Amino acid sequence: MMPTPLSVGKYLLDQLHRHGVRHIFGIPGDYVLGFYKLIGESPIKHIGTTREDAAGFAADGYARVRGLGAACVTYCVGGLNMTNPVAGAYAEKSPVIVISGAPDLKGRERHPLLHHLVQDFNTQHEVFSKLTVASASLEDPLTAYHEIDRVIHAVERYKRPGYLELPRDIVDVAHRHEHRDYSLDELTDSEALEESVAEATRMLNASKRPMILAGVEVQRFGLQDALVELVERTNIPVATTALGKSAMSEAHPLHLGVYAGAMGRAEVRKYVEAADCLLMLGCFMTDINLGVYTAHLDPNRAINATSEKLSIRRHHYDDVPFRQFMAGLLQARLKRHRKPSLPPRPTPKPVSARPGDRIRTRTLFSLVDQAITDETIVVSDVGDCLFGALDLGMDRRMEFIGPAYYSTMGFGVPAALGAQLADPSLRPLVLVGDGGFQMTGMELSTIARFGLNPVVVVMDNHGYGTERQIMDGPFNDIPDWRFTKVVEVLGQGRAYEARTVGETRAALQSALADPSTFHLIEVDLDPYDISPTLQRLGAELGKRAKGRGK
Amino acid sequence: MMPTPLSVGKYLLDQLHRHGVRHIFGIPGDYVLGFYKLIGESPIKHIGTTREDAAGFAADGYARVRGLGAACVTYCVGGLNMTNPVAGAYAEKSPVIVISGAPDLKGRERHPLLHHLVQDFNTQHEVFSKLTVASASLEDPLTAYHEIDRVIHAVERYKRPGYLELPRDIVDVAHRHEHRDYSLDELTDSEALEESVAEATRMLNASKRPMILAGVEVQRFGLQDALVELVERTNIPVATTALGKSAMSEAHPLHLGVYAGAMGRAEVRKYVEAADCLLMLGCFMTDINLGVYTAHLDPNRAINATSEKLSIRRHHYDDVPFRQFMAGLLQARLKRHRKPSLPPRPTPKPVSARPGDRIRTRTLFSLVDQAITDETIVVSDVGDCLFGALDLGMDRRMEFIGPAYYSTMGFGVPAALGAQLADPSLRPLVLVGDGGFQMTGMELSTIARFGLNPVVVVMDNHGYGTERQIMDGPFNDIPDWRFTKVVEVLGQGRAYEARTVGETRAALQSALADPSTFHLIEVDLDPYDISPTLQRLGAELGKRAKGRGK
Repeated sequence: MMPTPLSVGKYLLDQLHRHGVRHIFGIPGDYVLGFYKLIGESPIKHIGTTREDAAGFAADGYARVRGLGAACVTYCVGGLNMTNPVAGAYAEKSPVIVISGAPDLKGRERHPLLHHLVQDFNTQHEVFSKLTVASASLEDPLTAYHEIDRVIHAVERYKRPGYLELPRDIVDVAHRHEHRDYSLDELTDSEALEESVAEATRMLNASKRPMILAGVEVQRFGLQDALVELVERTNIPVATTALGKSAMSEAHPLHLGVYAGAMGRAEVRKYVEAADCLLMLGCFMTDINLGVYTAHLDPNRAINATSEKLSIRRHHYDDVPFRQFMAGLLQARLKRHRKPSLPPRPTPKPVSARPGDRIRTRTLFSLVDQAITDETIVVSDVGDCLFGALDLGMDRRMEFIGPAYYSTMGFGVPAALGAQLADPSLRPLVLVGDGGFQMTGMELSTIARFGLNPVVVVMDNHGYGTERQIMDGPFNDIPDWRFTKVVEVLGQGRAYEARTVGETRAALQSALADPSTFHLIEVDLDPYDISPTLQRLGAELGKRAKGRGK
Repeated sequence: MMPTPLSVGKYLLDQLHRHGVRHIFGIPGDYVLGFYKLIGESPIKHIGTTREDAAGFAADGYARVRGLGAACVTYCVGGLNMTNPVAGAYAEKSPVIVISGAPDLKGRERHPLLHHLVQDFNTQHEVFSKLTVASASLEDPLTAYHEIDRVIHAVERYKRPGYLELPRDIVDVAHRHEHRDYSLDELTDSEALEESVAEATRMLNASKRPMILAGVEVQRFGLQDALVELVERTNIPVATTALGKSAMSEAHPLHLGVYAGAMGRAEVRKYVEAADCLLMLGCFMTDINLGVYTAHLDPNRAINATSEKLSIRRHHYDDVPFRQFMAGLLQARLKRHRKPSLPPRPTPKPVSARPGDRIRTRTLFSLVDQAITDETIVVSDVGDCLFGALDLGMDRRMEFIGPAYYSTMGFGVPAALGAQLADPSLRPLVLVGDGGFQMTGMELSTIARFGLNPVVVVMDNHGYGTERQIMDGPFNDIPDWRFTKVVEVLGQGRAYEARTVGETRAALQSALADPSTFHLIEVDLDPYDISPTLQRLGAELGKRAKGRGK
């Protein structure tokens, strides 16, 4: 007797579970209720958010911490609310599976104007095909199982989102199928691998001043331990990109800091740009990552390995997977260099401001830096909270996630929801501006609902502060909220208003001492007060503008 | 001397102003700051919202009331946050112009990984091409002016959204151009027009029991007065679709009510379905509109005119514009029928419940009905607030907008923002569920900022109540908010909690008596308490299910 095959819906849940998914974020709707029922019967827990975009950000945060995330929504009114977070996950390489309900296949001809429909039945799938690395509408039980495998595989392979559309009347259909496990199916040209590793080894061994620049893919492909091994075996120092911050513990003696062109610390920049051989591992060279193109990295001295390509100086290798290349390097006869003398890292200065002084951005980041522990995951929104955060954790182990390339506002609070569910041993410290909080901060509702306990620091500079530095105008003003009253709307959490250094320090201490609930700290900043990072960037761009005679 | 030509950015603002736009909704971002500066120098006012989707809904509400709306956002992180409201405007025929900033054209080759970028520079334009009736990326000053004219024309012609992408370095470029006014350019086959009007006239004149069903396009094309003229000249009674509610004053003696299959009142349904000639004007026959396919309309007795097609019985006419067909009917020799004897409309019953009784949905709608005045615009979100609202205003003039086809949650509060700015003589009465409010209710922030004064009734049935009727499960639960505390977060507005009939009545009276600010009334309902409309629909669907032996 053959066993009864699983239905398409059950198979999808089974595969997600098999690949490590334990939570699905989203909001039900009539076209997806049948699948929600199945979630309820599965070992995967549904996390209901207030909005679909928050579900997308939460799944992204979850994926960054855990390796795979999932969100499930209804057709169009749900799915189209997730396009921005999914685009962000695409741009920043976060493996998120988007599942959307859809109208029944039966009757699509008879009823061409079903609710939630836009142009035609393919519209949403077409939109998501532009924002994902693989997508499928599961319209045929003969191919549905295979399509699920294919999309999950592509998401794992490329660490970018995938899209699965599930018509309402296909969820419970079962068909005989064979599971195909693609997980190890990566095409490798073993001779190219050998040649490239040999060439990289020669370059690194000949180098007088080698340097590693570690990017986000080190985290996405789980290569953090391999990186530490490579560094310790060769004594080659490391810097990370902004998006790759926390790819290696910044407490490591061979970790130099974040390299972000003029936006990063000057001594890191100088040291990295002086390297005679730069091994770039999983880096995406983007403008924000690089301090809006203030970076000066010479391709003629670079080995640039990512999951999408491998280049050494000016030539490229095909079919050398990133993981294989890393493994190859670890097996190669790499020279052990002399311990480099790195520029001393700045010890966090004791805050010199007096307790009664008005709190400033620079002091706030010093206080936050002191509050970080080994259990902290810093989750940043975009704006000066992100720029300032790049300097954090210089002498501590710290996990960090933030939208350092795509730069979407509203990421912080919902991503923290996902991150803490992905690893409950971490406590998120969320840095978010007033503008970002007004977008998705109410997702604290879901954080409260599931008993999570992040510390949320609202850096209230009364408007779009980073934009003020680019072009000032009344369009950068936003209304003042009494953010602390949010805990009263939710009936949970603790809130603090901080205008002075003393109040800020006390609020952080109180929040960290109380893991029983979430905490919201509203820090009142001057609209034109900015972080040292943004000051550095502004100074460099100013110099350049002068150089062009402007 | 030729006058200096306007820059592309200024020309766009000029054209929007010429077409009636006085407010642009949106959030600035670095790729669109230059255009925001121009808005500030123009007679059009920028309305900064807390989120981009709220800007989309507000522009939609504005367009429904005023005839054209506009939203302006930055690239991807802004634009992609608006896909859902724009899809809703497409589906429900609301003319909204979406303007998005984009990276400079110069340097796109050199810097292929600019922030906010997804797959490539065309991704956002491709996405919006699926959700709009016309779109353009203004990359060439030679064609930009013409493209602006073309997109605005298409939006006005089809009453659907259009998309204009404005690279940062094109905003201030000026080029000689000629303005082309397409507004009157609609292709008309005058012989087809004549033949179709003659045929419709014969059918209507021969009819013993004719009926008009008026849909949303009557409002979109500004044909309300023409409809009244047609009705009064012929004595043919009118019903409206759900999406077309308030296409004609329901106080008119020839107005029968909303026709929505089993969802509407039984006497309306019976009367409409018994017509021997049905003149459908601007109706989109959708499932929600029709009470989830409980409607029985016979095409063999129908004249179906919309802006997209004209059908009489089983044949079609090409190139007969909707407005021309209406004008043709008004000039035709239409017979004056005898005054029909319409089923008596239900007089709003005095609320029989005692003041101390727990408030129920049915009673709430009676109280809301009594609160409506000639200055009220009812703005509904989706869910039982929409279903119940279909019965409102039976003996009063009332404006109504709601997402009665696309059915997106979160429409209510931001659409009220747009509606009141579009016509400040109207005071919005917003009906929204707790789920919908949790999505976009914080947009009250913008309502407070601009001194508007809607009355927002939060129908708190503690979860996704309509979904509970379809499939019950824990996924329909959502956390309880203390909605009244929202006014404390915003530092403005007045709030009321109502659990009883007396409290609800008092809150409504107090809110209506005070136009100085916005009011939020949290009405505590039982999770399984539903409106009479939804009860009717449920009963009919239940009967059908039994008929199929289930």
